[in-house]
Amino acid sequence: MEKLDELYKKLNIMRKYSHALGIMSFDFETIAPENARENESETMDYFANELFKISNSDEMKELIVDLYAEKDKLSALDAILVDNLYENYLKTKNITPEFDLERNKVYSKAYIDWLSAKGNKDFTLFKDSLQAVIDTQKKEISLRENALPNLYDNLLNDFEPQILSDTLDNFFSELKDGLLSILGKIQASDHAIRGDFLTRYVPIHKQEKFSKYLLNLNGYDFKRGALTTTEHPFTSDIAKNDARVTTHYYENLFVSNIYSVIHEGGHAIFMQNEPDEDYEHFINDSITNGMHESVSRFYENVIGRSKEYIHLIYPEFIKQFGDEFGDVSEKELYEAVNIVKPSLIRTEADEVTYGLHIIIRYEMEKLMLSGKIKVEDAPKTWNKLYKEYLGVDVPDDSVGILQDVHWTGAFGYFPSYAIGNAYNAIYTKKMAESFDYKKAISDGNISLISDWLKENVFKNANRKKPKDWLYSITGETLSPKPFLEYLNNKYAEIYKF
Amino acid sequence: MEKLDELYKKLNIMRKYSHALGIMSFDFETIAPENARENESETMDYFANELFKISNSDEMKELIVDLYAEKDKLSALDAILVDNLYENYLKTKNITPEFDLERNKVYSKAYIDWLSAKGNKDFTLFKDSLQAVIDTQKKEISLRENALPNLYDNLLNDFEPQILSDTLDNFFSELKDGLLSILGKIQASDHAIRGDFLTRYVPIHKQEKFSKYLLNLNGYDFKRGALTTTEHPFTSDIAKNDARVTTHYYENLFVSNIYSVIHEGGHAIFMQNEPDEDYEHFINDSITNGMHESVSRFYENVIGRSKEYIHLIYPEFIKQFGDEFGDVSEKELYEAVNIVKPSLIRTEADEVTYGLHIIIRYEMEKLMLSGKIKVEDAPKTWNKLYKEYLGVDVPDDSVGILQDVHWTGAFGYFPSYAIGNAYNAIYTKKMAESFDYKKAISDGNISLISDWLKENVFKNANRKKPKDWLYSITGETLSPKPFLEYLNNKYAEIYKF
Repeated sequence: MEKLDELYKKLNIMRKYSHALGIMSFDFETIAPENARENESETMDYFANELFKISNSDEMKELIVDLYAEKDKLSALDAILVDNLYENYLKTKNITPEFDLERNKVYSKAYIDWLSAKGNKDFTLFKDSLQAVIDTQKKEISLRENALPNLYDNLLNDFEPQILSDTLDNFFSELKDGLLSILGKIQASDHAIRGDFLTRYVPIHKQEKFSKYLLNLNGYDFKRGALTTTEHPFTSDIAKNDARVTTHYYENLFVSNIYSVIHEGGHAIFMQNEPDEDYEHFINDSITNGMHESVSRFYENVIGRSKEYIHLIYPEFIKQFGDEFGDVSEKELYEAVNIVKPSLIRTEADEVTYGLHIIIRYEMEKLMLSGKIKVEDAPKTWNKLYKEYLGVDVPDDSVGILQDVHWTGAFGYFPSYAIGNAYNAIYTKKMAESFDYKKAISDGNISLISDWLKENVFKNANRKKPKDWLYSITGETLSPKPFLEYLNNKYAEIYKF
Repeated sequence: MEKLDELYKKLNIMRKYSHALGIMSFDFETIAPENARENESETMDYFANELFKISNSDEMKELIVDLYAEKDKLSALDAILVDNLYENYLKTKNITPEFDLERNKVYSKAYIDWLSAKGNKDFTLFKDSLQAVIDTQKKEISLRENALPNLYDNLLNDFEPQILSDTLDNFFSELKDGLLSILGKIQASDHAIRGDFLTRYVPIHKQEKFSKYLLNLNGYDFKRGALTTTEHPFTSDIAKNDARVTTHYYENLFVSNIYSVIHEGGHAIFMQNEPDEDYEHFINDSITNGMHESVSRFYENVIGRSKEYIHLIYPEFIKQFGDEFGDVSEKELYEAVNIVKPSLIRTEADEVTYGLHIIIRYEMEKLMLSGKIKVEDAPKTWNKLYKEYLGVDVPDDSVGILQDVHWTGAFGYFPSYAIGNAYNAIYTKKMAESFDYKKAISDGNISLISDWLKENVFKNANRKKPKDWLYSITGETLSPKPFLEYLNNKYAEIYKF
């Protein structure tokens, strides 16, 4: 098929742009000098816009429409590719290169204003940019040919197709009740957990060595990746054979790095185990955020915070971190990494309260998008919700509404984190039916788990939409119940309720 | 002037490509995972070729020719820009995008073959690529409109205009005699220098901290740069406000990193102090390699290996590297970093024998380019020259002819290193007339030196060709005498001859 060849040629060129942009973005977040960032950001905007021009060119549009009309003649993977492209075509066909450049500038400015507002603990420095982001996202939706009637659903759909606000309202309502109930039982428990050693000094080079040990243990392949540092840890899927992990070392909070590395390593292991054919057919980036978070949070929590994993790594922990931790038993380490305590910061939250942080953001997004609250009043609402759901007072906006980067351009992203937890709780039940994964952890056979994930979870992640994917693995649909059950069992044992 | 505006527009776009390529190349050399390199290299080739297409487009050629004809109407800096572009236009106007892509592939393949040959200590794995590189460079020269009659001069001219083989033959002949004479006196000396502590273990994190101390001390600005690791250290002029230094830490050879960092830091300090107007007028990368090496080797040797500098850094050296070096006196450290001993590896050579390594390469390049020796016989000639000039036997090609990367695409580069030494010896005399720079070093006032360099050495480096530049600073022309005098004085004191 000549048109398919033509499409592949263009996709190959677009992939070169994405590759270059991936490298530049990684550079920007990890090593670019302070005074070089503005310039680097402009260069990225330029190439992103060039890429947009190719992807949205008349020739490309024609190819997509023509191939979509002949979809039944295509192979299964090519049909998925053309479906993806057609859906994106409907979203973007009315967007001009000028508007594309404009929106990128709005997001870049929002990022800079957000950094400054956070640094100065002054929300008013971000207010106008936040409004501009909301306006830009609305404008973008108004240009879509396939817009959904509910404004916010369009943004949710960008990150997690098939899981829209009707579903989410029920999901979060049940999740919230369940989490608050477990939290209540924990707070009523009089079991004391030792946490004093968590703030002991561990120099960066020791943390770095331990991080590499953990990544190797979990099956991360350093020949197809790298580990380096950044301000806000992320994983970058730069190209085939290039999935990189970043972290942030705090010398007086070693646990922060450990779980950051395990979490990001989970994303990277997912990337390193996508089927080769998905890459060859240009559908390798079709995984949703919820699916991705299900895997990263599986590694972080289901594996990383399990009794069996602590049993596995404890000897190496003592060996590498030295005598300063000689007074800490395996059980004390396990309990310490599972302390539940309502707090201000999402990324530092425990497994139980984490979901409440997400629910607050979900509610805030709906309120702001619909105009029910004005952006200038957003901090007030934020603080009110934190008091109501988590019982904490927000001392200033830098640890409140300004803590996360997402609202500089990605409304609708937050729910993915909570959905991810629910997904993995559902497929972990299925895994447990196949083999004793807890034994695999304490035996150090993490590869048994990765193999199962590869065959069951990773294989169709690019090829199916979330609901169909989850059903194909488990025969079930999205529900917070298995996750709540997992939490209840785990913390009943720890907190003895 | 409309045409100048048009030119600037195109140069701005070309600068974005160079910026992207600079970031990718830095990524490739510092962090790109092993299995991702081939792909990354292909993406770089793609964008390099796109850049070539723009720079060599009919529109661009027309603009250059037209502006060159009206050069007298341009400002001084724009006239330099147009001169540079016109010279390059004559070199490249007959090169097709296909040939450009082809030559990049030859160089990329040569690099891969070289790595493999070096790793396997087997020159035959590199032989064919070496021949292909030579053939490609010859073919490229045959396409030039402004080719010089002597083949090798064209390659020399790419790196150091105005300093061609006639000049160099005399220069190197005098340099060789002088170096051999000094070396003879050193070898005849019975002064013993202690070097036992040079191989003591210093962990990487300590070396890294000390490297940052040295760079800060020398005036390197980390807000406009970064320090990271690589296999073969280099400095990268990625963009305005972005001059990055790389190094390689050997835990049992801390001195290697110290002088690598000071050397590369010298390049970067040069880059960080180019006049802003040079950047605005797109002449900021016009500095030759010889000029650049004059500065980096000035920092490495004239400053870094001086008695005064060792006096300055000794207390911090003892403080940071700890008790293991408590038995090493300041004088012993000074002498140890100045041990002269003929050896196999150029990059590890001392100040005296370094030039002999360069002369061998210069002679080899002329022999290979002219066809007087065949590439398969090159190792034999190499080994013969090492025995003759340095008195050392080459055990295998990985530490012989395969030690340097340059012949994978940059014939004519090596002489710059030796020329750089000669340049800085000439302008250091001039500096010494203005102020006591040795006192400035021991007082820790390195900025007095950078200020002088900025005003005298850096200012016109983009604007003048080497001979004119050196004359404008010193009123002198290239000669090895001041460098030989500097060496003789320094080593007569150390080795007491």
